Amino acid sequence: MKPIGSVCIVGAGAIGSLFAGHLGTLCRATVLVRRAEHAAELNAQGLRVSGKSDLHTRVQAATDPAALGDIDLVIIATKATAVEASARSMSGHFPSARVMTVQNGLGCEEVVARFGDWPLISAVTFMSGVRHSDVHVEYELDTETWMGPWARGRASFADVKQVADLVQRSGLKARAFEDLLPAQWSKLLFNSSVNSIGALTDLPHVRAFAACDGLTDLGHLVRAMMDEGKRVATAVGTTLYQDPWEMNVRAVSHGQTGNDEYAHVFSMLEDVRSRRPTEIDWLTGAVVREARRVGVPAPIHETLYRLVKARETSWQR
Amino acid sequence: MKPIGSVCIVGAGAIGSLFAGHLGTLCRATVLVRRAEHAAELNAQGLRVSGKSDLHTRVQAATDPAALGDIDLVIIATKATAVEASARSMSGHFPSARVMTVQNGLGCEEVVARFGDWPLISAVTFMSGVRHSDVHVEYELDTETWMGPWARGRASFADVKQVADLVQRSGLKARAFEDLLPAQWSKLLFNSSVNSIGALTDLPHVRAFAACDGLTDLGHLVRAMMDEGKRVATAVGTTLYQDPWEMNVRAVSHGQTGNDEYAHVFSMLEDVRSRRPTEIDWLTGAVVREARRVGVPAPIHETLYRLVKARETSWQR
Repeated sequence: MKPIGSVCIVGAGAIGSLFAGHLGTLCRATVLVRRAEHAAELNAQGLRVSGKSDLHTRVQAATDPAALGDIDLVIIATKATAVEASARSMSGHFPSARVMTVQNGLGCEEVVARFGDWPLISAVTFMSGVRHSDVHVEYELDTETWMGPWARGRASFADVKQVADLVQRSGLKARAFEDLLPAQWSKLLFNSSVNSIGALTDLPHVRAFAACDGLTDLGHLVRAMMDEGKRVATAVGTTLYQDPWEMNVRAVSHGQTGNDEYAHVFSMLEDVRSRRPTEIDWLTGAVVREARRVGVPAPIHETLYRLVKARETSWQR
Repeated sequence: MKPIGSVCIVGAGAIGSLFAGHLGTLCRATVLVRRAEHAAELNAQGLRVSGKSDLHTRVQAATDPAALGDIDLVIIATKATAVEASARSMSGHFPSARVMTVQNGLGCEEVVARFGDWPLISAVTFMSGVRHSDVHVEYELDTETWMGPWARGRASFADVKQVADLVQRSGLKARAFEDLLPAQWSKLLFNSSVNSIGALTDLPHVRAFAACDGLTDLGHLVRAMMDEGKRVATAVGTTLYQDPWEMNVRAVSHGQTGNDEYAHVFSMLEDVRSRRPTEIDWLTGAVVREARRVGVPAPIHETLYRLVKARETSWQR
């Protein structure tokens, strides 16, 4: 198998910047961004990674894929809401590339497949970063990125292992799966619940998300919603890799501290606070669609889905 | 039956001010308020009503019921969240009074009954006002206040008719019911749905609340929630006076205009925007409790109830 000599990271948010900054230490790293000033800054200054890593990497950035030539591995690291525009701009480019999608939720691979015949790798990441500027990202949580061949595409497990190996050698953590769906669904059910609930309650991931004592306690809702999601997963034929409720309980224990002060602010809550379109269609909306497809009732997911969609419309008033 | 020669309005928000301003034209009107400056202003300037009425009424205001002497009719017009404190302050006072509660939702009569043996009249009001200052209220919607004897108390229908007659003669609209529960439940199911949904989506009562075309449309949620509430009402043994879904459709048509610009901002949304405790426990929470009492599942009400309760806790962070 031909070694990976060039990568293109599409989208230089926190996750994209972490990939570009690390992978650029091993191979030619290019970055496809939306803003010309962002590209100019990256070309002039490179990308700095602080925190869990300490790197300063040269990258080639552009707003037009034609400027980057052919590429061995493309990683689409935008939010789910921007995948369609990214894939459309890639159409007709990168003929030799394998393409890996790293978004929350379900459904981005289908979107990419509409714009090109690339072998597709599905990925979910648990790492996190804080983007301090266009050219500086702090590597925060050094947790794994999981990847596997997209079930309906032509990427092989060998393709995936090669990518996972490259990512690991670059200083990030990665794991290759022959079937990513159990892990993807675990994360989906976790996020479709906690993200939408956080977005509507204006709460970060505090311990209340696991509290089940009184009638009003939020943990009852989180658990009922996750149980509903698990019934959908079972009907779809997916065995979960991790139980989303256990992921939730573990997440709110915040290590040993149990201190809500450091609770994680969900990306969907950040979107709502900034009045940006959320990823609700790829998270809670994806569960709603799958539930309808297999004929399983999902009233709680439908409720949260419609509430967040309606909240988005409130910003147009 | 002895005529009503004196009234005490507890709470001088928009609704309380409308009652005091109008009833004061027929009998001695007193007002019990929380703030001493508010009482002083009312005593000095009286109460002005503009809009659908044009009145300037002398009232006697106090923060202590002992200052007001005995009273024939007390109308508690605070928000549901303040009824307990109001009733506690009335304890041992107003020995000859009948007491009428005019709150959203269910459960305020029980609270008042814990603090005194007064004959209790239940009421729901559809009128609305805009409070321009401590001494000036604008009479906006000149719709009816409905009242009936509290089922578990000792007020008679004759008591209620006398109060309704007084309210009507004062220039407001009123209707006496032998059994208010069907009307109370209709309004409860309407408000427990639209208020909680409005509070979470930041939307006033726009036409989207009745839209049922696409999968994401909010009308699906409003209708499913109201259908769930109707199953609870049936199990409780209440026949509804009006269908809450029809009330919703009528409300969002905004007369002939269909113009969302003039959509009603729910009181619960105002509370959320001002980070005040909401009436959720008397609205959606009341349906949840009744559903549990009679053993009917109410997952959508439980979901909305817990979301709003959690939203309230977010203000303490």
